[in-house]
Amino acid sequence: MKLFTFWRSQATYRVRIALALKGLQYDSEYIDLLKGHQFSDAYDAVNPGHALPTLIDGDGPPLVESLAILEYLDEKHPELPLLPADLRDRAHARAVAQLLASDTHPFIVPRVRKYLEKELGLDEAKRTAWLRHWLETGSHAVETVLTRDARTGRFCCGERPTIADLCLVPHFVSAGMLVQMDLGAYPTCKRIFENCMALDAFSNTQPVKQPDCSPGH
Amino acid sequence: MKLFTFWRSQATYRVRIALALKGLQYDSEYIDLLKGHQFSDAYDAVNPGHALPTLIDGDGPPLVESLAILEYLDEKHPELPLLPADLRDRAHARAVAQLLASDTHPFIVPRVRKYLEKELGLDEAKRTAWLRHWLETGSHAVETVLTRDARTGRFCCGERPTIADLCLVPHFVSAGMLVQMDLGAYPTCKRIFENCMALDAFSNTQPVKQPDCSPGH
Repeated sequence: MKLFTFWRSQATYRVRIALALKGLQYDSEYIDLLKGHQFSDAYDAVNPGHALPTLIDGDGPPLVESLAILEYLDEKHPELPLLPADLRDRAHARAVAQLLASDTHPFIVPRVRKYLEKELGLDEAKRTAWLRHWLETGSHAVETVLTRDARTGRFCCGERPTIADLCLVPHFVSAGMLVQMDLGAYPTCKRIFENCMALDAFSNTQPVKQPDCSPGH
Repeated sequence: MKLFTFWRSQATYRVRIALALKGLQYDSEYIDLLKGHQFSDAYDAVNPGHALPTLIDGDGPPLVESLAILEYLDEKHPELPLLPADLRDRAHARAVAQLLASDTHPFIVPRVRKYLEKELGLDEAKRTAWLRHWLETGSHAVETVLTRDARTGRFCCGERPTIADLCLVPHFVSAGMLVQMDLGAYPTCKRIFENCMALDAFSNTQPVKQPDCSPGH
């Protein structure tokens, strides 16, 4: 398998965790989102949405969209499942994942930050306020959901990592990088985050441990 | 079952189509997103993310997030599946759905339009340009994906509706309502849209046919 990746990409970090949890080997091809490499003709041929990640698995068409890739990996390699067995619990894990991946993450990606700066002419303070607003809204929502729900355990949905955790950890790592978000305001998320980061699959795949990491970037 | 719904809600329209395709009966409770009913204490108890839709199925906890609800309905009622059988095709259908539901729809929801107006003080022309930009970006991406992919058939992924179509139709209906988007620029999407709208499950559940529809609203 080959994964098109970028160290800071929140969506790609989700897939790196899944591949690590399932013990799947892959090669990496680095796409620098901040330098616009996603708009190259070569990458457009692979992913017309110009987003990360893309996973190539054998001869089939490229696989795109992180949550679709997570479901694919889970269906193809069902050992150590990324979803609970019970139907309602599966819906819950997927809902927590969506709360972060669909309702929060879209607002902080490079193409949006670029629009705010270039098209709307917002200064840095207003751009940071935008990022902080949506990151805090999403963090608050997921903290409320997890604190209220009886299924919350060592991880977001029970005692094993699910796709919800694969979205939660990258969300807070991105929030830390972008607006120095303090996890202290979200105690349930903080506890789960720390339980996840105690696992190699979450820790070794984090942005700052990627070969293409360029911290001042 | 009970569905919390609003006629204009793109995400709820996806679920209304799924329920209709599968022939499932439900009661509706109307939440006017433009009047802020999603922030009431009663709705917060059901959905702390303050978003639509929410589905109540029996005595279990409320089900939230449209794509998680679609997967739940498909797993619980597998007749007339909303996903193809092949693993890669399932990933493809989910990816097209995400391209619209996660990469496009978040930018046009009421809470974002409110932020643009109240926090950033953007005039109507700039707010409309924002909506048009993201709706066109998403439409272009999905048109490119569907035009290139050999699996595109009468519907987004083959000859039967999948979750991809359940996202495509509500996307273009929203785009029509918000910025009078012309489907002519997206011929593959237009063809599939028309094939879907020939089905009662897509046509009868559309926003303008909802009991709470208020067109000047």
